Amino acid sequence: MITFFTYPGPNSRKAQIMLEESGEAYRTQTIDITKGEQFDPKYLEISPNNKIPAIVDEGPQEKVAVFETGAILIYLAEKSGRLLPPSGAARADTLAWLFWGTGALGATLPQLHHYADLAQRIPGTVERFGTEAVRLFNVLERRLSQREFICGEYSIADIPSFCSTAGWLGRVKQLSDGKLGDTPSIDRWLKAVAQRPAVQRVG
Amino acid sequence: MITFFTYPGPNSRKAQIMLEESGEAYRTQTIDITKGEQFDPKYLEISPNNKIPAIVDEGPQEKVAVFETGAILIYLAEKSGRLLPPSGAARADTLAWLFWGTGALGATLPQLHHYADLAQRIPGTVERFGTEAVRLFNVLERRLSQREFICGEYSIADIPSFCSTAGWLGRVKQLSDGKLGDTPSIDRWLKAVAQRPAVQRVG
Repeated sequence: MITFFTYPGPNSRKAQIMLEESGEAYRTQTIDITKGEQFDPKYLEISPNNKIPAIVDEGPQEKVAVFETGAILIYLAEKSGRLLPPSGAARADTLAWLFWGTGALGATLPQLHHYADLAQRIPGTVERFGTEAVRLFNVLERRLSQREFICGEYSIADIPSFCSTAGWLGRVKQLSDGKLGDTPSIDRWLKAVAQRPAVQRVG
Repeated sequence: MITFFTYPGPNSRKAQIMLEESGEAYRTQTIDITKGEQFDPKYLEISPNNKIPAIVDEGPQEKVAVFETGAILIYLAEKSGRLLPPSGAARADTLAWLFWGTGALGATLPQLHHYADLAQRIPGTVERFGTEAVRLFNVLERRLSQREFICGEYSIADIPSFCSTAGWLGRVKQLSDGKLGDTPSIDRWLKAVAQRPAVQRVG
């Protein structure tokens, strides 16, 4: 049985979608980050970077603890045999786009969010992260103009980018002042992923 | 034969260390990012995010192109059977810390570098990324106080964090104004990784 340590937020959503996609049984345990529960020494044994989400899979032979969203997705894909090709070019491509989604896109949008919507506006910062977000969404649009999903078939590479894009594309367009234009391929892909039963169950 | 597409910089160094660790034969092709060669349509087929490093492995059956440093490390580890446990808790832990190194640490330090050393000083930005860098190095120090390498034995999880830490620990300490203290475990680990023949060959 897998325990899913979570608190509402984009990274928890990515992990939970993959839990649903994997078909593995899991129970949910909330780590209330507004009360500092992520610093509890017991939780740090599971998630030493004091972040959510994390999972613990207590198997018959060993207990596996995983933190970092990307690593959780790979773990669940390999355990279930779903959404990650086992070898070759398709596997390498899926992992490359997984890192792109958790790293490049996933690192840029929270900074843009911080400087555009949470903190006091500091001249230059919104432009810096906004320009990078526009570049990344153009890369994604080009990619999806040639493929149904990011790596052809739906895979773990779609999940982080889907969550980030669904939450942020509109705001980035608004902030970009026309620099990010129409994104018909991304729009089509967002609808397709949103219709997956696993995604609908997570909501 | 693997072709390594590169330009001098921290991410290229991470990939090249793993190329050396893997024992795979490779030849190097420079992508001059100061001349915009990363936008060449032929290169975009290999690295659609227009970044270095990338690799192409032309095998007897298929051509495998890989971009994103973390994905390159996993690809080379799985191809060579080195530095990534094949299953279980040790594999999950190695992948978690790989994402931590390329994502958390690897995303924070370039922003700190930008605001502290490259761009005009914008009040608040150095403090923001500096505070996160201090937190991350404290996480790493605690981890390495309990293990010889990040995941016990030397693995692909050490490579990105080693390159980032070797280049940045001193500057972060300087900027932290005493908030990041002594790091004896990180210092020991930096020396141990630096002594590996593969790391010395890359320089």
